[in-house]
Amino acid sequence: MIKVGIIGATGYAGGELVRLLTGHRQAEIVWYGSKSYIDKKYADVYRNMFEVVEDSCLDDNMEALAKKADVIFTATPQGFLASVMSEEILSETKIIDLSADYRLKDVSVYEEWYGIEHKSPQFIEEAVYGLCEVNREAVKGARLIANPGCYTTCSILTAYPLAKEGIIDMNTLIIDAKSGTSGAGRGAKLPNLYCEVNENIKAYGVASHRHTPEIEEQLTYASGKKTVINFTPHLVPMNRGILATEYASLNRSTTYEEIKAIYDHYYKEESFVRVLEKDICPETKWVEGSNYVDINFKLDFRTNRIIMMGAIDNLVKGAAGQAVQNMNIMFGLEEREGLKLVPMFP
Amino acid sequence: MIKVGIIGATGYAGGELVRLLTGHRQAEIVWYGSKSYIDKKYADVYRNMFEVVEDSCLDDNMEALAKKADVIFTATPQGFLASVMSEEILSETKIIDLSADYRLKDVSVYEEWYGIEHKSPQFIEEAVYGLCEVNREAVKGARLIANPGCYTTCSILTAYPLAKEGIIDMNTLIIDAKSGTSGAGRGAKLPNLYCEVNENIKAYGVASHRHTPEIEEQLTYASGKKTVINFTPHLVPMNRGILATEYASLNRSTTYEEIKAIYDHYYKEESFVRVLEKDICPETKWVEGSNYVDINFKLDFRTNRIIMMGAIDNLVKGAAGQAVQNMNIMFGLEEREGLKLVPMFP
Amino acid sequence: MIKVGIIGATGYAGGELVRLLTGHRQAEIVWYGSKSYIDKKYADVYRNMFEVVEDSCLDDNMEALAKKADVIFTATPQGFLASVMSEEILSETKIIDLSADYRLKDVSVYEEWYGIEHKSPQFIEEAVYGLCEVNREAVKGARLIANPGCYTTCSILTAYPLAKEGIIDMNTLIIDAKSGTSGAGRGAKLPNLYCEVNENIKAYGVASHRHTPEIEEQLTYASGKKTVINFTPHLVPMNRGILATEYASLNRSTTYEEIKAIYDHYYKEESFVRVLEKDICPETKWVEGSNYVDINFKLDFRTNRIIMMGAIDNLVKGAAGQAVQNMNIMFGLEEREGLKLVPMFP
Amino acid sequence: MIKVGIIGATGYAGGELVRLLTGHRQAEIVWYGSKSYIDKKYADVYRNMFEVVEDSCLDDNMEALAKKADVIFTATPQGFLASVMSEEILSETKIIDLSADYRLKDVSVYEEWYGIEHKSPQFIEEAVYGLCEVNREAVKGARLIANPGCYTTCSILTAYPLAKEGIIDMNTLIIDAKSGTSGAGRGAKLPNLYCEVNENIKAYGVASHRHTPEIEEQLTYASGKKTVINFTPHLVPMNRGILATEYASLNRSTTYEEIKAIYDHYYKEESFVRVLEKDICPETKWVEGSNYVDINFKLDFRTNRIIMMGAIDNLVKGAAGQAVQNMNIMFGLEEREGLKLVPMFP
Repeated sequence: MIKVGIIGATGYAGGELVRLLTGHRQAEIVWYGSKSYIDKKYADVYRNMFEVVEDSCLDDNMEALAKKADVIFTATPQGFLASVMSEEILSETKIIDLSADYRLKDVSVYEEWYGIEHKSPQFIEEAVYGLCEVNREAVKGARLIANPGCYTTCSILTAYPLAKEGIIDMNTLIIDAKSGTSGAGRGAKLPNLYCEVNENIKAYGVASHRHTPEIEEQLTYASGKKTVINFTPHLVPMNRGILATEYASLNRSTTYEEIKAIYDHYYKEESFVRVLEKDICPETKWVEGSNYVDINFKLDFRTNRIIMMGAIDNLVKGAAGQAVQNMNIMFGLEEREGLKLVPMFP
Repeated sequence: MIKVGIIGATGYAGGELVRLLTGHRQAEIVWYGSKSYIDKKYADVYRNMFEVVEDSCLDDNMEALAKKADVIFTATPQGFLASVMSEEILSETKIIDLSADYRLKDVSVYEEWYGIEHKSPQFIEEAVYGLCEVNREAVKGARLIANPGCYTTCSILTAYPLAKEGIIDMNTLIIDAKSGTSGAGRGAKLPNLYCEVNENIKAYGVASHRHTPEIEEQLTYASGKKTVINFTPHLVPMNRGILATEYASLNRSTTYEEIKAIYDHYYKEESFVRVLEKDICPETKWVEGSNYVDINFKLDFRTNRIIMMGAIDNLVKGAAGQAVQNMNIMFGLEEREGLKLVPMFP
Repeated sequence: MIKVGIIGATGYAGGELVRLLTGHRQAEIVWYGSKSYIDKKYADVYRNMFEVVEDSCLDDNMEALAKKADVIFTATPQGFLASVMSEEILSETKIIDLSADYRLKDVSVYEEWYGIEHKSPQFIEEAVYGLCEVNREAVKGARLIANPGCYTTCSILTAYPLAKEGIIDMNTLIIDAKSGTSGAGRGAKLPNLYCEVNENIKAYGVASHRHTPEIEEQLTYASGKKTVINFTPHLVPMNRGILATEYASLNRSTTYEEIKAIYDHYYKEESFVRVLEKDICPETKWVEGSNYVDINFKLDFRTNRIIMMGAIDNLVKGAAGQAVQNMNIMFGLEEREGLKLVPMFP
Repeated sequence: MIKVGIIGATGYAGGELVRLLTGHRQAEIVWYGSKSYIDKKYADVYRNMFEVVEDSCLDDNMEALAKKADVIFTATPQGFLASVMSEEILSETKIIDLSADYRLKDVSVYEEWYGIEHKSPQFIEEAVYGLCEVNREAVKGARLIANPGCYTTCSILTAYPLAKEGIIDMNTLIIDAKSGTSGAGRGAKLPNLYCEVNENIKAYGVASHRHTPEIEEQLTYASGKKTVINFTPHLVPMNRGILATEYASLNRSTTYEEIKAIYDHYYKEESFVRVLEKDICPETKWVEGSNYVDINFKLDFRTNRIIMMGAIDNLVKGAAGQAVQNMNIMFGLEEREGLKLVPMFP
């Protein structure tokens, strides 16, 4: 059994990690870290776990945990992991970081977009960006995984094959994304109150959201072209789900069949990516609770653009599910272990 | 592998059966019956099943199916099963009926409350009321299970120990229940449109809902006293979940500890019933997606009443989950097989 | 023009007062009191008011305000008004208090249920309980109005005619109430986050909610019999609306027609109470945004009980609307001025 | 008093017309046309209107109605009005058409996108496109108003000043729009059921939605350049509201101040358009129930694009409110009469 520690176990992503790992046959949680709820029973924080999890919450002592755990998931605020990271810790355990601390290779970009100083930039190079479908081989040998952001997972996978194949003009890429409210976390903030979110839709972080450089960096790798995009997130009155609607101009004339073949080429063997049938638009409800990414596209010959669409569950493929997928790959397990989740509808 | 047929596979309860059985290690679905979608791919009806279920929908020929299946789940409108039932069918397969056709032992009560003639009353006596926690022994040998209604499962289990032990005055029992909208089914009806349900709560079927006699019959068995109740269902703007708030006068003075001990006595060994800790009220979100029943109570010495509360997921413990639990018991499997579902939150 | 001051103008009830008074032809707001947002533009707190309200928020100095305003609405936490109240203030202005400070005539009941000391009990006797349909005459001459609670307004008006006429056994009255989330206020608390409230229903304050003694006191006056009830509130995933489902045993045999005639006798001339037609259940969506109370009932001869149902918008008839209605009565205006609000659907 | 007839009074837009006109001091409804509910009391269809509207529904006889009404609102399916229109009708009454029948000047575009033959193209030229802020003068003298679509009203007004001033490259305009579910109408269709819409977001009509050519035509007039766009609508789980997020490349370098001044120039005197303060994003909740359009923008110098955002209530400014605004202009009334609606929040 792989011994798993979680730091930040009482956020929504942490809670989802617990849900998924509870059903994982080769992992057991040995540490429920939560600075806010130390000594409180975990099931008193998340009552769905009553009679499922008996443990209480512990603090976030990474050094102590490193000695006990084979892998640590950090579902913590930006800057936390970077501030405590050390070679000693990494020599004793593997780390899958759900924060953004090691996602961006250029530390100055991190510091600019996140507005904080990076306390351990020496580990950035080693960190593997854990977008499994793209970096599977690198993940296998990694000690430190930078688990991708929710918006970025969805945005990148939706455009990746066409970026890679040079089909779309990267300078024209516009990503209009919509997220359920669990993405905003469990902090008790006014804008996240029920009556503020319900019966409303709004854009936020326009031209300034932190997932922008993460998407740009990865799509630059994919396309081989410096990519600068517009990314606009929106808050939707629902618990879970991200939908990305992406627009780009075509570099050359093409057909539905050609594009479909490209997507199939990249994703046919992927367990968690489903390229939908013609004219079926992805909907977040069809992936809810699962690790799937549903993708499709529509060519618009009037404007010479392609509209690409992707849907994920932000807490699963966008956070905890992908983290477990990374763990499975790192430890040589069947990649789908613990993740054979049929989407729940309605 | 147990061969399973489903009639009514494209309703919400049918869809949930498919979700649960897909994760069941000792059962496989051999027949997706759906009169409305014959020859249509199942995954075109429920796109969460894309790349999960490859089959297409078939008709509702019970006789053909009886020869192929070890057990048939009928998630069909009232009256359907009664109209096609025969000794021949029952001699070839087991049936777990999610409709109300065999739930009431008195056929005249059925005909009065449902307003239809019962076409095969000769099977009523044999049918076992599949409330697993109450009738487990009888379920084991049954050929025909009347799977309880969603409201009734929640309402009965919440009051059962106190009814059985004579703690509450059965003549004073009032059940005020609240249900998510999936309980209304997938029919395209005006009152179930999004804009009609959203931002609204209403009572319906006041003093006339069909689950009333079902609750009364079972609680009469439990208490040994002819029980007539008020039952009022309400429609809540959410997908899943039933909460029953039940009021009854106490037959004698008692204490929190005594009542808690009674509930624990009945349910401590039950995998799917969770008696909550003192002062914690059941909430539907903590059982969503799972087969749990969460129960608690509050004594009010000012009024000499007890308020009992129970929460379930109407599609799981209130329908498909309990049906699978019945199947597991009937076939001698581990009762939790396919049902180790951790509630999904948020 | 009546000069109006509001203390607590940035809570949800305060915001609704502003919305309603903006459309009132004989009142103008001269003071937007909000301790949390002093000097902030009101329209920056509630952006629906952009280009509608130009003022900024002021503090909660009741003495200064009393000199400027003809009437003060206090939409403040329990205990605030009692702690600052003085004869001097009341000699200069009228007060309509949306908190509970002067609702209960017995100060010991207040202190027991609210858990705080009452700082100015000498004003309790003078205060008029502002349930307009019941106490209209007393409201006319009042200096100090205790504006009823949201649950209580709905609960009392629904049962009042039958309590008054001795039709129902007051010892059997059970009120099961359901409220939208705006009733929980605009405080940034974990249980009120979108993801915590959405897709969920729960009871809370079982056998201990503070509106219980308020309902009991008023129904004791109405019935002439000491009334002790069960009152159970529930939180519903919607913004606005309260539905009260009330159960009581009948004192004698009766008919639909007799009960309907009683309701009509009490409410036919009331602008804001609508007794619905036979078999139509009140729904919160049909009163949303308006000052209406929709009421109906169902006799159940099987149990000798009556089920009464009432629906209001908790922020209008349950708070700001009734407060304006009280103001209209106190100042001799047309009672419906500013309140001719057609419910908004969907 | 202006005598108003409504054809299609029982759809959501029709219901909103009734709500607005009920509060209009110079108009009275003389005809509630609804083919589906002939002879049924209007308040039995929309119970919010109980004791507000006493009339019953009538049929859709335009000729009879033309003789009784000074103006007819047709909130009817595409093709209805075109099929019954005649010079005789127009000689007796004015018509404000909420369908698309007379919105597009090129009948072949109408027939291509709507897939139906236009039965009275001879009236297209005369019809005035009733986007009040753009075509106010033409509306004044019109007999026949083509009331704009909901998406189009929001989309056009948001981009109009910059299109007119040549600031944006019209060939790069991409509109990603999000709508509440009332926009889908009150038809009992499976995709509009509560459980299908709730907890979900999806795009639909990608590269094929019928509002596309309407936006293109109007922005072509504004910009003087043939405009072809991408328009993608999305369905959001909420009742009301449309948010349009619009992307375009800048034709030349500019500043926040310059763009703000342009918007102010066009909209400062407009009662119903609110250009928000810097960095405030429009949200649908701040306009709900009102006739406002909230607009703002963000410059992204990294990509040389501007992101424009607009929010409306689809049933008010997107349908019934704009229709009443057109009526007010046509009849020389104060433009805001009946439309001084403060947005309702929460």
